[in-house]
Amino acid sequence: MKKIINAPEQYTDDMLKGIYAAHSDAVKYADGDLRCYCTAKKKDGKVAIITGGGTGHLPLFLGYVGENLLDGCGVGGVFQSPSAEQIFNVSKEVEAGAGILYLYGNYTGDIMNFDMAAEMCEMEDIETRSIVGADDVNSNANPDTRRGVAGIFFMYKCAGAKAAQMGTLDEVLAAAQKAKDNTRTVGFALTPCIIPEVGHPNFTLGENEMAMGMGIHGEPGVWNGPLKTADEIAAESLDTLLEDMPLSAGEEVCLLINGLGATSVEELYILSGSVTRILKEKGVSIYRTFVGEYATSMEMAGASISICRMADQEMKEQIDMPVNTPFYCQK
Amino acid sequence: MKKIINAPEQYTDDMLKGIYAAHSDAVKYADGDLRCYCTAKKKDGKVAIITGGGTGHLPLFLGYVGENLLDGCGVGGVFQSPSAEQIFNVSKEVEAGAGILYLYGNYTGDIMNFDMAAEMCEMEDIETRSIVGADDVNSNANPDTRRGVAGIFFMYKCAGAKAAQMGTLDEVLAAAQKAKDNTRTVGFALTPCIIPEVGHPNFTLGENEMAMGMGIHGEPGVWNGPLKTADEIAAESLDTLLEDMPLSAGEEVCLLINGLGATSVEELYILSGSVTRILKEKGVSIYRTFVGEYATSMEMAGASISICRMADQEMKEQIDMPVNTPFYCQK
Repeated sequence: MKKIINAPEQYTDDMLKGIYAAHSDAVKYADGDLRCYCTAKKKDGKVAIITGGGTGHLPLFLGYVGENLLDGCGVGGVFQSPSAEQIFNVSKEVEAGAGILYLYGNYTGDIMNFDMAAEMCEMEDIETRSIVGADDVNSNANPDTRRGVAGIFFMYKCAGAKAAQMGTLDEVLAAAQKAKDNTRTVGFALTPCIIPEVGHPNFTLGENEMAMGMGIHGEPGVWNGPLKTADEIAAESLDTLLEDMPLSAGEEVCLLINGLGATSVEELYILSGSVTRILKEKGVSIYRTFVGEYATSMEMAGASISICRMADQEMKEQIDMPVNTPFYCQK
Repeated sequence: MKKIINAPEQYTDDMLKGIYAAHSDAVKYADGDLRCYCTAKKKDGKVAIITGGGTGHLPLFLGYVGENLLDGCGVGGVFQSPSAEQIFNVSKEVEAGAGILYLYGNYTGDIMNFDMAAEMCEMEDIETRSIVGADDVNSNANPDTRRGVAGIFFMYKCAGAKAAQMGTLDEVLAAAQKAKDNTRTVGFALTPCIIPEVGHPNFTLGENEMAMGMGIHGEPGVWNGPLKTADEIAAESLDTLLEDMPLSAGEEVCLLINGLGATSVEELYILSGSVTRILKEKGVSIYRTFVGEYATSMEMAGASISICRMADQEMKEQIDMPVNTPFYCQK
């Protein structure tokens, strides 16, 4: 295992110490617990949005805490859920009088702990709503049981914008729901990654093999087979995406080409070019293209393709709202 | 070789097509040549800043073309220089009446071609100045013959800010020179990368081996040996940096922790934390910390540590000036 670390068991906390040291103007932690990650710029009367999940996916999850996006994040160990108590402590810190939206990925441990935190909030008269990202089409035929992956970015953007505009808790939830309803993702891996405390790869792939549909923790996908070209991967991925969410000629989408960690930005743009050409052939317009690392799996090689259908003008404005966090800036 | 590509020989052009398709509002190409990369938002009367270099280092070099940064970039093949003619064609396109600063890395092929382009400009009465980044301390004892690596970011920031403020060509050159004089970098690699058209790694490192001082094209460093901890790497790197550019207690620096490609952002923050602790012990203040991928080597694992001494208040304002490109946004 080749990682720049001090000790595997210090991975998450050393990372957090580095983040707080670098960005003390923007973020802080609650309750003396590094893993209770909160904005340092709380805004009174605004709906607070809290996310959370395991370490190993930067900038997901904590990287989206900042201006016009999220307010707090429960930080778990590598690929582990934060505890209910940590989520609750973040909630108490960032709650600003207008309630809290819990917005996170559809994973069993996270659901259990966010639900428990919601109950703890209820006992203190803090109102919460919850919604999970579940955009990974290949992870399940049933939309309700799909895993949440990079497409949660669009939910963050839309909910964050609505909250920044001082929307009510139900309005912020509705913005997240609309983004969810219109977002689909397909991902694929070329190499595994290594959980520091485990010390060996979480799966194996042959010399020239890729895994279509693999999850960001190494969950099995729909096929393992010879590495395809960028054009072939784009075509197959779009077939999967558009079968699940048909698009008519003339419709507009946002496109997110996300790198899983080790894949170069050069390759992401090659893939982006392939996807763009096919969408154009189908008469689908791209409102805005995002290319980069938005939800990673440490040093896993691979990428994901997310499409978010622009359902209305309000959604475009939410997508265009400038945001600024220590990890992500958009003008 | 596991890359998301269509064919090795199409790597650079497919990447460029993807970039232009995604960001046609911000950038365009001159003279019908994809590799003549230019801002789409030319500003009359402003000094134009042009960079250039090989593909494989995104966001370096072209990623810094944009608002309050650079105006154009000659794009070479993977790890190859752009041609003099390409640089000249970019020059003609982005020149806006106040002359051009050529600002690029200290590599023989680039110097030759930029110098030739400068001569071609002279024949058309376009005034140019040139300066090269040469921040890689371990690459040579002689500062003049050092390679340029991630520290060029600070030269881009300072020169870009001065140009945006409508400084003269000599003032923009002086801003770049001041950033150069105050910037030093140390880098190290954990794995090699693969040039697409070559198809195999450009060097080999053992299972648990790192290469201190290795360049971003795989140029040999000062030692290969067992992988050290983040704390140990930070300590050795700072010893090298501060021996070359001593800092007194009370001085302020900007810190840039740059990932070479495959190294996770989590690890970069672990390293950032180590560097920050040591600087604090020495009484050196950090004015601003930058962590992420600023100058990569495709899928190479490893990182670099750059320090830019804040020589005066003007430099801090240049560093703080908001910038926006398709690849890099800072508010």
